[in-house]
Amino acid sequence: MANQNRQVLLKRRPAGMPTTADFEIVDAPLPEAGEGEVLVRGIYLSLDPYMRGRISGARSYAKPVAIGAVMEGRVVGEVVKSRDPAFGEGDYVFGGYGWQLFSAIPGKGLLKLDPEDAPLSTALGVLGMPGLTAYVGLSNIGQPQSGETVVVSAASGAVGAVAGQLAKRSGARVVGIAGGADKCRYVEAELGLDACIDHRAGDLGAALDRICPNGVDVYFENVGGAVQQAVFPRLNDFGRMIMCGMVAEYNDVEPRPGPNLMAAVRKRLKIHGFIVGDQWHRWDEYRTMAAPLVRGGALKYREDIVEGLDVAPAAFIGLLQGRNFGKLLVRLDDDPTRGR
Amino acid sequence: MANQNRQVLLKRRPAGMPTTADFEIVDAPLPEAGEGEVLVRGIYLSLDPYMRGRISGARSYAKPVAIGAVMEGRVVGEVVKSRDPAFGEGDYVFGGYGWQLFSAIPGKGLLKLDPEDAPLSTALGVLGMPGLTAYVGLSNIGQPQSGETVVVSAASGAVGAVAGQLAKRSGARVVGIAGGADKCRYVEAELGLDACIDHRAGDLGAALDRICPNGVDVYFENVGGAVQQAVFPRLNDFGRMIMCGMVAEYNDVEPRPGPNLMAAVRKRLKIHGFIVGDQWHRWDEYRTMAAPLVRGGALKYREDIVEGLDVAPAAFIGLLQGRNFGKLLVRLDDDPTRGR
Repeated sequence: MANQNRQVLLKRRPAGMPTTADFEIVDAPLPEAGEGEVLVRGIYLSLDPYMRGRISGARSYAKPVAIGAVMEGRVVGEVVKSRDPAFGEGDYVFGGYGWQLFSAIPGKGLLKLDPEDAPLSTALGVLGMPGLTAYVGLSNIGQPQSGETVVVSAASGAVGAVAGQLAKRSGARVVGIAGGADKCRYVEAELGLDACIDHRAGDLGAALDRICPNGVDVYFENVGGAVQQAVFPRLNDFGRMIMCGMVAEYNDVEPRPGPNLMAAVRKRLKIHGFIVGDQWHRWDEYRTMAAPLVRGGALKYREDIVEGLDVAPAAFIGLLQGRNFGKLLVRLDDDPTRGR
Repeated sequence: MANQNRQVLLKRRPAGMPTTADFEIVDAPLPEAGEGEVLVRGIYLSLDPYMRGRISGARSYAKPVAIGAVMEGRVVGEVVKSRDPAFGEGDYVFGGYGWQLFSAIPGKGLLKLDPEDAPLSTALGVLGMPGLTAYVGLSNIGQPQSGETVVVSAASGAVGAVAGQLAKRSGARVVGIAGGADKCRYVEAELGLDACIDHRAGDLGAALDRICPNGVDVYFENVGGAVQQAVFPRLNDFGRMIMCGMVAEYNDVEPRPGPNLMAAVRKRLKIHGFIVGDQWHRWDEYRTMAAPLVRGGALKYREDIVEGLDVAPAAFIGLLQGRNFGKLLVRLDDDPTRGR
């Protein structure tokens, strides 16, 4: 076992697209677990688009990461020392302890994971925050009905892949939008969506007109930018726009204009934003529904795993540029016998 | 009784702000009531902002008025001849029979009005479509809570005046926005809103910051344009935007850009459009609630009545420019003994 910690710190707030120079990777002493605390060795770190908001200085729904602080993030790990009677050495746990190899944190901030339930990494993806995000967006806002047309942007991504598959299960016709032919093939062949449009392959509006001839009833918005501009005018009367994220605009220095909202009146649209952090009370409900589907192969997922904490900044930047393919995870632990 | 009809026809589709030359006023033969029909002499014609949409060629929720057709509109009138046993001569009725002095229409398209219930003209305003619009916007979408801040644009208008007063009754703090000092005085002194901001009197954003120091929880949007630009960024987390109309933009040839929707994610906003035409099933519920308030003086209203069908086009243009003060009505009947 490594006898020291390693951490990724926020060095400065990026202007526009982050660069690796905005981060600093440092060695640090192995933390000590105090009374009621647990020392956890990380196995997987989750990288997610929302983190771009946390390193910006703009007002948002959560406090930003301070300059010089450890980058915020969720990790699956293994308990190596416990001073909380609820946890024992060797327990697998899930918690939000940041971009670092080890953390000593209060046991009450951790959830125990059963590796028999589903692979540990899924607690960060299909059965974790991204999966729950897709679930609450569809069930609270989108409510797709049989026969309706649902469009999901970033359809091969961690949230989009679950959103698309759950929308299919509701009986809707589901069209994905993704960047590149490989992702589109995956969305159609593996995830089983009815079609997938490559937004890099030409006129997205014309493709939507061809593939969604009856318009769009529900739009699960992960992307913003040109994709939003193409989908918004194609929303049908009584359409729902699930405002989950707009990753294509997260590095904008000035916000772009949005759509004219008179369409919301004319078409009686519902445009609803949500934050999964308000919805953790539905976590058990979601896992109870989704874990059997994952185990049985009915809810598919794909992980894009990069090796080692030191590549986390570059991998995160790639995520903001759409270069990952599937749920982006960093493997923190180089012992292949642990928690795979 | 006049022995011929007079009608306002749509002559051509306006480009931008309509002019009186876009309309044509013609005499026409007095119509004959067929079997099951009723001949109605109009008393009041309602002029409303939605009519701008009906004379545009753009796709909307309702069919446009055809070139050469009678302008669409709701009227309160008196039955002068009935071939429907449900109606007798002298009955007062309400229906959508357009900008004309007389109409022969099926009785099933009419509602009978009791002049003892409330003044006849209120069926076109506070107890009619505008009042119902305010009611369903607040009850379905805004749902203001005690202690919240509600902002209502066009607060002295037919919809806004009811919206502001109903929001006050919910226990919210209610701030109106109106154009000009007279209207603002009326909104504060007569309607009893907590404050009213004159959007013509300088920096609207700064005024909102001063008068709504805790931000805006519910925005009843009637106006669009610069008013929307000022209110939208001041919406609080979990804010609701009742998208009722955007009259300041109805004459735009190209739609203006709207707000960047990432705010909807960050703040978990609900931006909902609605059309009162989908909500007529709540008409009885609304009148049952509101008519006693109107009779008792607890729900105030103001009418801006212009005389004679021939001035309807100019009055309608004034409405689009915010020149009316209260619910705009055209008196069609020059006999002062009838239905006042």
